[in-house]
Amino acid sequence: MQDVRVIGFDADDTLWHNEHYFLEAEKKFWELMEDFLPQHTSARELMKTEMQNIALYGYGIKAFILSMIETAIRISEGTITSSGIEQIVNFGKDMLDKPVELIDGIEDVLTALDGRYKLVVVTKGDLLDQERKLVKSGLEDRFHHIEIVSEKNDHEYLKLMRHLDITPGEFAMIGNSLRSDVLPVLNIGGYGFHVPYHTTWEHEQVHAKIEHDNFFQLARAADFLAYI
Amino acid sequence: MQDVRVIGFDADDTLWHNEHYFLEAEKKFWELMEDFLPQHTSARELMKTEMQNIALYGYGIKAFILSMIETAIRISEGTITSSGIEQIVNFGKDMLDKPVELIDGIEDVLTALDGRYKLVVVTKGDLLDQERKLVKSGLEDRFHHIEIVSEKNDHEYLKLMRHLDITPGEFAMIGNSLRSDVLPVLNIGGYGFHVPYHTTWEHEQVHAKIEHDNFFQLARAADFLAYI
Repeated sequence: MQDVRVIGFDADDTLWHNEHYFLEAEKKFWELMEDFLPQHTSARELMKTEMQNIALYGYGIKAFILSMIETAIRISEGTITSSGIEQIVNFGKDMLDKPVELIDGIEDVLTALDGRYKLVVVTKGDLLDQERKLVKSGLEDRFHHIEIVSEKNDHEYLKLMRHLDITPGEFAMIGNSLRSDVLPVLNIGGYGFHVPYHTTWEHEQVHAKIEHDNFFQLARAADFLAYI
Repeated sequence: MQDVRVIGFDADDTLWHNEHYFLEAEKKFWELMEDFLPQHTSARELMKTEMQNIALYGYGIKAFILSMIETAIRISEGTITSSGIEQIVNFGKDMLDKPVELIDGIEDVLTALDGRYKLVVVTKGDLLDQERKLVKSGLEDRFHHIEIVSEKNDHEYLKLMRHLDITPGEFAMIGNSLRSDVLPVLNIGGYGFHVPYHTTWEHEQVHAKIEHDNFFQLARAADFLAYI
């Protein structure tokens, strides 16, 4: 850890709460679809559409709205009204307008790191949406900049290292997703800190035990302070 | 120009053709809406929705699809069928799947600049979509990386300078939009090269004559070679 110069923070569910807004919108979507299918079937169908569209749409709320619309048309067999579609669009617009609630302890961590490391936000969401959240969060001045990556895999993290002009050994990443924030960073030779969030999107789940010298499992963000 | 170290290239309609795919999709949209409104009125309504949504959705094809859907529901007074909505979604998916055609002369310019400057792509589109186009274009190796900005204004260009660790006097930007690629860069003290594209989105048009020591009007990309 003594070589680390840049610390990357995942944004959603690491700096601020996010997943519960998706769950809230999904719940409204399942309810809207109840005329056609039981809620758990709608949930499965939506997940299927999202997975099919990731390569084309990427991540973020706009992709999520488009996938809800497509799923609604399919499971209603084309009988959903335009008022139903409008409601779905508004579920999404509401999400884009939500307040930002910080994760407990994250401000103390950022304060402790201030001036000692270059801090960046690394996210695969929409830039505009993430910038808006960063401003709303009041954390804007704590970070050097936001890095948007199209996918959090080895290849994209290596591009990020080149972009930041550092070696992987000079980089640590903190996030709630083992799949996106930890495993690829360990793979390329960086340090990975996992701070679980109480809900994790199914797509991000990893069912394996990780043993690696550069891996650190934390119970909560504040525990990171022990490693500085 | 002797201090310039980094050259930023706008992507859409500067490196490759783009606007005509939007126009093609819009035309299909106007035709689909002809049952409700004459084409020029649909065009105006769509533009209105897009402008209203920019702060929330930002730029890019997903934002465009969502604005088409919203416009269709509004101008059909809720009578558009889900099959109509599905067609709109597919107009957008088709756009995301289009081939990439390079702008004439751009490869020669990049070849001439190779090794002499750090070249970056600066775009306000979707990262995933722009990366896909960069790979399809075959130009991936010519650029150091892609910079995604949420808006091309003075503030965001200044953030970009900080991000690139350069002063504005070390930066030149080349693009087809006076509003986005040239004026803010001149404002912060950089160099702006304007290469017009035959069609420019209404939102990007500037009706003024620019006189500035750091401003260069080019007829086509290849003319940039005279300034190296």
